[in-house]
Formats: sequence, structure tokens, C-alpha cells
Amino acid sequence: MIALMEYVRPDVMIYLLDMVGVVACAIAATTLAMHKQFDFFGCILVSMVNAIGGGTLRDVMLDRHPLFWMQDLNYLLVITVASLLCQMFFHKIGRIDNALKFFDAIGLAAFSVIGLTVALSFEAHPLIAVMMAVLTSIAGGIMRDMICNEIPMVLQKEIYISASIFGSALYLGLAHFAVIDWIKETVALISIFGVRMLAVKFDWHLPSIQLKKPSAN
Amino acid sequence: MIALMEYVRPDVMIYLLDMVGVVACAIAATTLAMHKQFDFFGCILVSMVNAIGGGTLRDVMLDRHPLFWMQDLNYLLVITVASLLCQMFFHKIGRIDNALKFFDAIGLAAFSVIGLTVALSFEAHPLIAVMMAVLTSIAGGIMRDMICNEIPMVLQKEIYISASIFGSALYLGLAHFAVIDWIKETVALISIFGVRMLAVKFDWHLPSIQLKKPSAN
Amino acid sequence: MIALMEYVRPDVMIYLLDMVGVVACAIAATTLAMHKQFDFFGCILVSMVNAIGGGTLRDVMLDRHPLFWMQDLNYLLVITVASLLCQMFFHKIGRIDNALKFFDAIGLAAFSVIGLTVALSFEAHPLIAVMMAVLTSIAGGIMRDMICNEIPMVLQKEIYISASIFGSALYLGLAHFAVIDWIKETVALISIFGVRMLAVKFDWHLPSIQLKKPSAN
Repeated sequence: MIALMEYVRPDVMIYLLDMVGVVACAIAATTLAMHKQFDFFGCILVSMVNAIGGGTLRDVMLDRHPLFWMQDLNYLLVITVASLLCQMFFHKIGRIDNALKFFDAIGLAAFSVIGLTVALSFEAHPLIAVMMAVLTSIAGGIMRDMICNEIPMVLQKEIYISASIFGSALYLGLAHFAVIDWIKETVALISIFGVRMLAVKFDWHLPSIQLKKPSAN
Repeated sequence: MIALMEYVRPDVMIYLLDMVGVVACAIAATTLAMHKQFDFFGCILVSMVNAIGGGTLRDVMLDRHPLFWMQDLNYLLVITVASLLCQMFFHKIGRIDNALKFFDAIGLAAFSVIGLTVALSFEAHPLIAVMMAVLTSIAGGIMRDMICNEIPMVLQKEIYISASIFGSALYLGLAHFAVIDWIKETVALISIFGVRMLAVKFDWHLPSIQLKKPSAN
Repeated sequence: MIALMEYVRPDVMIYLLDMVGVVACAIAATTLAMHKQFDFFGCILVSMVNAIGGGTLRDVMLDRHPLFWMQDLNYLLVITVASLLCQMFFHKIGRIDNALKFFDAIGLAAFSVIGLTVALSFEAHPLIAVMMAVLTSIAGGIMRDMICNEIPMVLQKEIYISASIFGSALYLGLAHFAVIDWIKETVALISIFGVRMLAVKFDWHLPSIQLKKPSAN
């Protein structure tokens, strides 16, 4: 396994998973934008908000400049091409709904691990780092929903933030025992992806913590 | 009074009032989020947006890093606990509506004075400092309403921005006469809180400045 | 012409066009805000969001501090006065709808050229600079619509982003041939304004790139 990792470098792996997540965000955003009658550039712009909005918010909050997508133009190019193709083949998109959830879960895992490690590299407190993991993975989708006049689904009933927090906590736990980076990262990626996919498959939701009124008898 | 102030340091007093405001924001946000069927983490996230969103926007605009809540983790902890308790005892929240307006007015006063003094310490122009006082106190609530798909009430008909501007102007007026800090701050705090509570009690609204059409006769 | 330019300095010209755009934004925002029953300060705040929100986002993304409107208080003053007058004469605003589209197109052109040149002066990649031109000219309007709970019209069906991209591309093309600044800027300004006004006049929309389903026969 360690021999394998010499070939599959973990940072390259995370970069590729990140791009998978970016494509998933662009497709999800374009699909929603098409339903809202957005035009060609409107769809692309909302795709960018969804795919890089969370990371941008993280970078601005951490005062990390230039922003990640200004240093690496692949982000904007990948988003534009993904949105373009999605607009062209829009009437076939309905069929890939399950595939989209799969790729979206990959994005959730990659975005979370990137947000966490970026924040830790800026010497943020672990609690802040977990928050940055969550923001990196969900803020773009929330901004997309705000622009499209929808109430953000990720805040309502999906195991989404929870998966990100769970994997981030695992990462920090392993860091406590000085586990080397690629193992921490792989464990976090797999656990976030796994929890999210299980939640999709078995329709898991967070239970309400509201205490019930005593019944009136 | 001056002897008393040696014990009750004004910066400690403002910090405590700030935390009262943070709790009020967290409760207001959680209550709205529960009505919108947000889940556990959704409620906490919206509470954070409401309680620290305005100050975050101010810090980002002034290029003030690290952000205030990254330096002092009490903000995130207080918000999380307040939202947690609010979710547990949600069915009893209706009864505290008047108390909430009281604590919210304390928050408006504290957030405004903090926004004003932070901006002045960054050598912002007084006009910019007043704007930062307003942004610190209302931007979080506006962001909350945007996420929850509501039109922000504070922009519609409450004496809210006006109270913040009034107190900030008083502060700047006293600063003109070289009045010492804690007096300026106390006057601003009391005047903002007072104007806001009077507006709540007597249902004050700003008059429209729209000139009427001449009647057609 | 060159002799004329010694008197009409291009940077002064762009500044004046910028202010025309700021006034157009303030009037458009105040008109929408009045329809949404915003009060006096609510209208002014939404006007500020519309007029300087895009430039603020650009400056924050480029880490350009102090923000442009903190250095030049004319922005806030012009917005406040424009919103004030618009509120007073609100019942007459309906008659200036066509004039507003004219001034708004001037603003689109000025905001785009400013966004483009600011980004290039920060040594941004040309692709990023075009994106900053677009953001500077449309982000404020999108934020206004988000606050007012409307789906942003500029993302739906107007030739708006396209005009900004077209003029920015012309600017960059001319820059490739080392054309001097004021010619590049004038060409970009006129082309953006021209495309936008033609789109308004002839009701142009972007065609959809969606491939049609093969008909079922």
C-alpha cells in the first residue's frame, strides 16, 4: 500500500477528487438554473458560485490570497465546460440523478478534507478548522440556493454537514496520535463519503432534539 | 461612579453585552430555522450567520484578520449552546418573545458600539465608522433572512438602523469634545437600547418621505 | 481627438460614467425596495448594496484595501442623495423607465471597464480580469435581488453578462496589439454600452444551447 502511494500521490488524488466534486457542483447548479430559466452565462455563473463559493469564503475568512481559483485556472475551465455540456444535454440529465449523488458525495469528502487541511496549515484552532471544512463543502450550495430563491436543502434534512464534521473529527483524532498525513486524509475522505452515501441509501436524517410537550392528561 | 468603573471595566461590560446580543441572535435564528424545518446543524449554522455574520463582514471589509471569532472561541461555543438549548425547549420559546426583544435591543447596542469603535481604531472616516456600526448590528440578521428566504424585517419597518445611527452619531459628537471613552460608549449603548425599546413599546416606524401626488381636482 | 483628450482625461471620463452608473443602481434599487415596503434607511442600504456591492466583492477577492468607497466618500454620498430623491419623487419614477435603462447601460460599461482594469493592475490573469469585470457590473444587482427575495433578472434573459464579456474581450484583444489605454477603454465602453442598448431596443436574448430531443416518430 505504501509502495502504491509512491505512485498515487495523495495530493494528486485529492486534487482529482476535488475536480470530481467541482463537476458535480457545476452539474447540480446548472440543472437547477435551467429549471429557473437562467440563460447561458447565468447557468455558468451559478455553477461557479456553487463549485468555488465555499472555498472562496474560506480563503477570504482566512485571508489567504490569491484565492485558489485565481492561482489554478483549471477550476473555472472545468466548471465552464461542465456547465456547457450540461446545458446541451439537459433533457438527459434526469437519468443521471443517482450518479450525481455519488459524485456529489465525492465532492463533499474532497472539499471537507481540503478545507480542513488548508485551515490547519494556517494554524487555525481545530474547532475553526472543522468549521472551515463544513463551510468549504456547503457554503457554495447555500449561495446557489439563495440566488435561485430556494431554501437550502443541506440545512433542512440531509446528513451532509454531519458527515463533514464526522470525517473532520476522525482526521483530528488521528492527528492527535501523530498518524501520517495520507492515512489521515484517506480515512477522512472514505468516512465522509461513506456516511453520506449510507445516508442517501437508507434515507437517514438527523433526529430532532426538541423535547416534546408533556401530553395533557 | 468613576470609582465603580474601576471595578466594572467598560470593555468587560461591552463584552458581556455583546454575548447577550449573540445569545439573542442565536435564539432568534434558531426559532426561525425550526419553523423552516432546518435540522440540528442547520439551526446552529444559521445561528452563527445571524450572530457573527455582521462582525465578519465588517472585519473582512476592514481587512482585520484573524476574524474576531477565530481569536475568541467563546463566540462559537456560546452560539452552539444557545441554539442547542433553544432547539430542545422550542415549544416553550413562544413565551419569551418579549424577553427576546429586550435582549435583542441589548445586542443592537453592543454590536453597534463595537462596530463603531473597531472601525475608528482602524482610522476609518467617521461616516464609514457609522456604516460599520450599522453593518455589524444588522448584516447578520439580513443574511439569516436571505438564507431562510424571507424579506429582511429590519429593512422594512422597524426603528433599528435608525437607532444604531442615532447612538453612533451621539458617540461621534461626544468624541468631538474629547469626552473619555467609557462615557461615550455608555451614552451610545444607552441611547441605542433606549430608542430601540421605545420603538418596540410605542410601535414607532419611520415616516415615508414620499411626496404625495397632488389630488386630481 | 488626441488634443481633446488632453482636456477630457479618460480617467475623469470613466469616473463620471461610474457615478452615472452608481446613480442608476441607486434609483433601480430604491424603486424595487419601495415596492417591497422597505423604509427610509432600508432603501438606502439596498441602494448601497446594488451600487457598490460588485466592486466590494471584487476588491475583497483581489485583497485590495482599503475598499474603493472607503477611500472616496463620494460613492456613499451620491447613493444616499440619489436614493433620497428617488424616495421623495417615487410616484413619478414610472415615467423614467427608459431613461433608467439608458443610464444603467452606461453603468454596466463603466463598472466593467473599471473591474477589468483594476484586476489587470493587480496582475490577474486575463480570464480572471474578465470575470472581475462581470462581477463588478452584476454582483451588486444580484445581491439586491437576493435581499429583496427576487430571482436575479440579469441571470435569466437579458444580454447583460454577454455585453460585459464582449467589451472586455475587445479590450484584451486591443491590449495584445499594444494599443494605448484610452483607446482600449473607449472602445470597451462604447461596445458594452452599444451591445446592451441594442439588446434593450431589439429585445435580444441569448439562444439556448440545449440540444432538442429527437421527435418521437
